[in-house]
Amino acid sequence: MTAATPDQALPAGPSSLLQVPSVDAAPASQPTRWPHRHLLDLDTISGPEIELVLHTAEAMREVLARPIARVPALRGTGVTILFYEASTRTRVSFEVAAKNLTADVVNIAAASSSVSKGESLIDTIRTVEALGARMIVLRHSSSGAAQLAAEHFSGSILNGGDGWHAHPSQALLDLFTLRQRLPGGDLRGRKVVILGDVLHSRVARSNIWGLTAAGADLWLCGPATLLRGFEAWASASGSVPGHGRFQLTSDINQALKDADAIMALRLQRERMAGGLLPSTREYAARYGLDLARLALARPEALVMHPGPMNEGVEISPEVAAHPRSVITDQVTNGVAVRMALLYLLAGAIDG
Amino acid sequence: MTAATPDQALPAGPSSLLQVPSVDAAPASQPTRWPHRHLLDLDTISGPEIELVLHTAEAMREVLARPIARVPALRGTGVTILFYEASTRTRVSFEVAAKNLTADVVNIAAASSSVSKGESLIDTIRTVEALGARMIVLRHSSSGAAQLAAEHFSGSILNGGDGWHAHPSQALLDLFTLRQRLPGGDLRGRKVVILGDVLHSRVARSNIWGLTAAGADLWLCGPATLLRGFEAWASASGSVPGHGRFQLTSDINQALKDADAIMALRLQRERMAGGLLPSTREYAARYGLDLARLALARPEALVMHPGPMNEGVEISPEVAAHPRSVITDQVTNGVAVRMALLYLLAGAIDG
Amino acid sequence: MTAATPDQALPAGPSSLLQVPSVDAAPASQPTRWPHRHLLDLDTISGPEIELVLHTAEAMREVLARPIARVPALRGTGVTILFYEASTRTRVSFEVAAKNLTADVVNIAAASSSVSKGESLIDTIRTVEALGARMIVLRHSSSGAAQLAAEHFSGSILNGGDGWHAHPSQALLDLFTLRQRLPGGDLRGRKVVILGDVLHSRVARSNIWGLTAAGADLWLCGPATLLRGFEAWASASGSVPGHGRFQLTSDINQALKDADAIMALRLQRERMAGGLLPSTREYAARYGLDLARLALARPEALVMHPGPMNEGVEISPEVAAHPRSVITDQVTNGVAVRMALLYLLAGAIDG
Repeated sequence: MTAATPDQALPAGPSSLLQVPSVDAAPASQPTRWPHRHLLDLDTISGPEIELVLHTAEAMREVLARPIARVPALRGTGVTILFYEASTRTRVSFEVAAKNLTADVVNIAAASSSVSKGESLIDTIRTVEALGARMIVLRHSSSGAAQLAAEHFSGSILNGGDGWHAHPSQALLDLFTLRQRLPGGDLRGRKVVILGDVLHSRVARSNIWGLTAAGADLWLCGPATLLRGFEAWASASGSVPGHGRFQLTSDINQALKDADAIMALRLQRERMAGGLLPSTREYAARYGLDLARLALARPEALVMHPGPMNEGVEISPEVAAHPRSVITDQVTNGVAVRMALLYLLAGAIDG
Repeated sequence: MTAATPDQALPAGPSSLLQVPSVDAAPASQPTRWPHRHLLDLDTISGPEIELVLHTAEAMREVLARPIARVPALRGTGVTILFYEASTRTRVSFEVAAKNLTADVVNIAAASSSVSKGESLIDTIRTVEALGARMIVLRHSSSGAAQLAAEHFSGSILNGGDGWHAHPSQALLDLFTLRQRLPGGDLRGRKVVILGDVLHSRVARSNIWGLTAAGADLWLCGPATLLRGFEAWASASGSVPGHGRFQLTSDINQALKDADAIMALRLQRERMAGGLLPSTREYAARYGLDLARLALARPEALVMHPGPMNEGVEISPEVAAHPRSVITDQVTNGVAVRMALLYLLAGAIDG
Repeated sequence: MTAATPDQALPAGPSSLLQVPSVDAAPASQPTRWPHRHLLDLDTISGPEIELVLHTAEAMREVLARPIARVPALRGTGVTILFYEASTRTRVSFEVAAKNLTADVVNIAAASSSVSKGESLIDTIRTVEALGARMIVLRHSSSGAAQLAAEHFSGSILNGGDGWHAHPSQALLDLFTLRQRLPGGDLRGRKVVILGDVLHSRVARSNIWGLTAAGADLWLCGPATLLRGFEAWASASGSVPGHGRFQLTSDINQALKDADAIMALRLQRERMAGGLLPSTREYAARYGLDLARLALARPEALVMHPGPMNEGVEISPEVAAHPRSVITDQVTNGVAVRMALLYLLAGAIDG
């Protein structure tokens, strides 16, 4: 059973450079290898596979703690970061993760590239492949873009966010952070609240998959106009054995009461249209996470935010900087989780 | 005559790392070394020098096929990619090519740099040189920009496209692709058609030089308004011994009949002005390359496009994805050809 | 006293790789180590500390002269170049400097990042830190941004220009260039003129600190509207023993007479508002540095400009390209000075 350790799937370089925890510490259900060529969303990733990502990310955290946080696992692998939307943290997080694995990284930002000349996504994907990329991290404003790209690319697509649909690496880093910071490291039965603009949030959608799979008691809370369309999904949740269910509410007091963790979502002002909200001021007054509302949760409750924050809107500056805020942990864990994802997917191409 | 092999002009690193084909396989007419410091257009590059580029690009294709496609030929050489126009494929192609040669690459995109503050091109070139660049890949919207830059730079200028004037690395990769994919690998007497917006196309202009030098029977086809100004040049063609001639026509049936290769040009909608075309719809109907028109060419005729494509305008999606389309080959060959160019020009600086 | 050499504070790699001048050649007053974690402006940097920077930059010039200008001093150190304003030379200069020291460099340009979504500077700094940066080079349109960033970052902030306030690395490279090029290499008693738009110039403000500390006889010259607010500072200057004083004048003939060096400032047209100038044409006529005006200075007077230049406005093309122009020296020296700064600050974090 020693073949089950991730380090033995190491695509290049001596495995000893990547000191992953020994296989003896891994749960017995852990799969021997990662089977997926792409990462499009979490809905097709099994619980044991999620365990494998988080387990590998632990090893990557240890790499990050070294004076020179670099391993040669992806040496010679072309990784293109193709972003059709502005981003700092996700783009840089993947760039740092890929460089830490010694990949050859190319950045393409839509605004300064020929994609602004109207080239189709499929043609761009084919071109990027012909230029040598084996992995593409894609961010796009259209839901389904990552799936479409995957159908036309012989390497691996990592969805870095597609429209309102999915942001799986974010959900995985959230899961990693919750397990790291919650007492006992177990999400089963824990009350987790996703608060705010759920409607426009790919972060929320991917977290629904990840958090219910981990057995959390999940609540989505926001104005009714921003919870629209989630009712049927919520009703169907809880029917999978071992998975948690999720509930919707517009009553913030009910949602936050005795919560173990609260994830405030960015109010996507740039995606707002059609009068879904009266004003950001009223939104902040009714759904902003401030100290008074945080007091409704358990005393040790964690505060999370995927960033970038609108401080004073969905979260108050005091809560963002609160000792129980794990927002910067999310960012650092994001590098480790993305290193794990790049590493596992590269193994799936080569293996 | 062993001094004639390109690997012995290798600027840095052991020459054995760059396994170029042995000199014995090279034609007797091959020059002993590359004499040009700059690559501005093909009109001053001799036939044997073009052979040397294509020959070196063959060696670079072999490098690209390795698991780690990297040779230390340009270690320590500063290469700045200075683009005043949006681009994906050319910019990334040069970036990947330079990094594969272990150069130190800096990207400067005009929109996000001080060139937007009105600094002159000459001052920018001097600044880039003072910052350590030995080679500059320049794209600029003005014809003649590369020439001007070359007059004020002590290193090498590689023209990555200047206005409507020239795009020599594109013409060289087109030539490389044609020789690779045409039966027999010889262009002499082959009917090659450049179809579409010739007027605004630097790709067409550089290809006229390259394809006639290679002895092709070249046809330029498009609406009369988009062939304007080429008559005198066409009349003078064919007078150079061993070179092919080129002809103009607006009759697409005449152009495509029995063609060996068809290169569809991007309709430069962003450059269109002054009512040169009634509409893109009518343009597509009269000059778009679709399956019916492709059937006029020889059964094994190749389809090319420099990208980015307006699918449904100058080329139909079916033709772009046709088994005889070599459009993605062009992209991959582009990396090899640009590696060859960077390598040869670096030898010309140092030698 | 061997512990005083900068190479022994080398954060990583064998010190022999960085051949700094031997300590015996250093002035007795040179401090044993660099004490500052951040570089915000020159006003808190002592004279001996400035000497240490210039001394270290000399060693870096020697590194730059090598065929492969790279030393491993910052291997494994994350350097993020976070620019909220357009820039070529400063951004690329820091990028090349950091790469020459083998740092891991990430570029973030505000326009293509989430900072355009309204994230606060403090949150961005925290995020960049969580992503692994140990040093941030920051350019921002607000005066005080670097100070604010330093209060929320556990690594080193290098101010790459904040509003009208400060641009300390520019002032240090100016100082380095003057000492290198002035006969005798000593600024004491030398007449240096800063000419032009002083009001909007962070370059002028930082140079006032550096040049008076070096003992220069400094003159600021420009239209009265562009010298506003400097009177009290000028009056107070000269009271520090060993420091030079600076004077204001709108009389360009008085300013340039017998000058040893003239630094023309960029007319910050993009910062102009409120009718401070009648027109750029009149500005050029009254304060532009042309050959006739240059003739007022000493025959060997140096011409400087921080770039980018508006040729024909604050400086004529003939003066910019004059044999006594050291404008490209400034650019090259900028790389050496920034290598020195990154090196010294990294030692202050680790030490």
